[in-house]
Amino acid sequence: MKVLAILYDGFDAAKQEPRLLGTTENQLGLRPWLESLGHEYIGKCHRLVSSSKEGPDSDFQKHIVDAEVLITTPFHPGYLTRELVEKAKNLKLCITAGVGSDHIDLNAAVDRKVQVLEVSGSNVVSVAEHVVMNILLLVRNFVPAHEMIERGDWQVSEIARNAFDLEGKVVGTIGAGRIGYRVLQRLVPFDCKELIYYDYTSLPEAAEKAINVRRVTDIKEFVSQVCSGIFGEKLQDSCHPTQCDVVTVNCPLYENTRGLVNADLLKHFKKGAWLVNTARGAICDKDAVAAALRSGQLSGYAGDVWDVQPAPKDHVWRTVKNPLGAGNGMVPHYSGTTLDAQARYANGTRSILDNYLSNKPQDPQNVIVGIGKYETKASRSYTS
Amino acid sequence: MKVLAILYDGFDAAKQEPRLLGTTENQLGLRPWLESLGHEYIGKCHRLVSSSKEGPDSDFQKHIVDAEVLITTPFHPGYLTRELVEKAKNLKLCITAGVGSDHIDLNAAVDRKVQVLEVSGSNVVSVAEHVVMNILLLVRNFVPAHEMIERGDWQVSEIARNAFDLEGKVVGTIGAGRIGYRVLQRLVPFDCKELIYYDYTSLPEAAEKAINVRRVTDIKEFVSQVCSGIFGEKLQDSCHPTQCDVVTVNCPLYENTRGLVNADLLKHFKKGAWLVNTARGAICDKDAVAAALRSGQLSGYAGDVWDVQPAPKDHVWRTVKNPLGAGNGMVPHYSGTTLDAQARYANGTRSILDNYLSNKPQDPQNVIVGIGKYETKASRSYTS
Repeated sequence: MKVLAILYDGFDAAKQEPRLLGTTENQLGLRPWLESLGHEYIGKCHRLVSSSKEGPDSDFQKHIVDAEVLITTPFHPGYLTRELVEKAKNLKLCITAGVGSDHIDLNAAVDRKVQVLEVSGSNVVSVAEHVVMNILLLVRNFVPAHEMIERGDWQVSEIARNAFDLEGKVVGTIGAGRIGYRVLQRLVPFDCKELIYYDYTSLPEAAEKAINVRRVTDIKEFVSQVCSGIFGEKLQDSCHPTQCDVVTVNCPLYENTRGLVNADLLKHFKKGAWLVNTARGAICDKDAVAAALRSGQLSGYAGDVWDVQPAPKDHVWRTVKNPLGAGNGMVPHYSGTTLDAQARYANGTRSILDNYLSNKPQDPQNVIVGIGKYETKASRSYTS
Repeated sequence: MKVLAILYDGFDAAKQEPRLLGTTENQLGLRPWLESLGHEYIGKCHRLVSSSKEGPDSDFQKHIVDAEVLITTPFHPGYLTRELVEKAKNLKLCITAGVGSDHIDLNAAVDRKVQVLEVSGSNVVSVAEHVVMNILLLVRNFVPAHEMIERGDWQVSEIARNAFDLEGKVVGTIGAGRIGYRVLQRLVPFDCKELIYYDYTSLPEAAEKAINVRRVTDIKEFVSQVCSGIFGEKLQDSCHPTQCDVVTVNCPLYENTRGLVNADLLKHFKKGAWLVNTARGAICDKDAVAAALRSGQLSGYAGDVWDVQPAPKDHVWRTVKNPLGAGNGMVPHYSGTTLDAQARYANGTRSILDNYLSNKPQDPQNVIVGIGKYETKASRSYTS
């Protein structure tokens, strides 16, 4: 059996730090085990920026034609298009070492009976922590304050004029699944004014009560207090008196969530709101977000996901700022690939492979596409 | 009556943002009220970096000689030395618009029967939020990741090699008072391995149980699992099996806490620990912290307090990094002066003044020095 792993190059870092398991150098720690079983194991980087890119000369294209198992990560993904699925005559199983398989054409996988599995719980805590960090550093205006210190300045008023407490603010998550719910849990002791969520389905009542959250079923009302009822005299009755100071995106990327946060929705945001997106870049419209930040409609945008990864050098999200020269908290896609997370998704990848090799059943939570059919509830609509 | 307020210049920011109350421009919003009562109100900046500095020409020195009330902030403090207290013949009351009055010679205030009051609860939440943000951004390696994106790069492995989850780590606070306890409360849902505290006294049992924290009475044991009992066979019995991954400083600056985190104590830290200090700069030895970060004994240092404020342009904490070129999360002193906090400490300053003018009793929580005596418990030793 041939196993192809498309990872990211770690260079010296990976040689010096063996816990960097998700790299081409350390190959998820699978090589000794797979080779002891007599399997062929190819660990390569998907060199998106090289000349061979996704052309016929790339390692990805060369090895996919006869691989039985493909391992990828969401951080530096190998994009498995329908065309490639059709070329991959032996392909039976795709494993995402992490969470989120939108870099794979899932419809093509269903059609060709290629299974798609993820290590579903492996980094939900990692991402939830990153979200809380992002919310705090936007609301509290951290980045320009640190830059001011580094360059030798000290003007407290320039920072404080745009620094707030999270206490007393309204925070809403688009998506209250495994990550979104963990974000809300972590926000409970911050004494926010209200925690709300938008999702295609309700949380169980006990889960709502445990952290005192409320579902809003209309996305515009969710961000902006637009009333779904009758305007005018009945305003007080039909409107809930909160709107989001902070919106955080924690839903999968599907056709229904692509571009969900676009120019039209951003107009309905509270003026000066903060937006955090560690889900997938394409859920937010790139240019609309940049324009909203530039105009001050958004006070800040932070996250680690981009519509293409690695992000091009001139991607507008790298440097766009609010009118006060602040409000950018972007980083490369790494929130789910801390060293703690890498240990978990490397172990999880091995378990999935072990189940596959020994015909044991897979953990149902990990199965995105079974043989010829979708298995995950998460593929249902997020836009009601 | 003459009221002298030594604040910080806000320049254009203060003109554009009236909520910047703690500036010389907006003067805590007290001018109309004080002038309507017929009092003289002088609002000046303590220009530490100008040539007049603390010399006889400074506004501070000129006006202190006949002021009855002095208002200062901890962010850009007017340092009231014993010499100045003795020159201030009319001085009866010092109000710190914020929390922490170590910029005032409290012994001199006791001797000269000058009262010292703070707005004690005004920014404890603000600072606690800043601490949690600092812990997350050090543990998760945020700053170099953001800098990488800004300069157009994308090397996930360079960031991930030094990025961890807060989950499963041991966090300890030096000081579990109004700020330290709020930090611990906010950390509860992060599923740390353990939350511990070092303080001169125990929390009430119910307060410990509510957030599942444990007191450690020996500072070296607190940071390093040094056993206070007998080594050797009894190791298991006398040692608790945890030590701090993260240490956060949340105690006042007094003689017993000055230089508490010094070269000797840092040697006992867990290798690669993270240190956060939003209390007072002088609690940590400047050069010892810088050396520990440079050597990798500390993985990171973050906070907003400095031994002198504003920090000199060449202060080593502005730019010192760990061996991977990361681990610096320093900002100017602003965690307690968010716009939300400014509203609270401006209101609190007015209440203290109002009580003083109308001979009403002060809130005991706000009184640091009463007439001729210390009133606060917080002046007790933090070093057992």
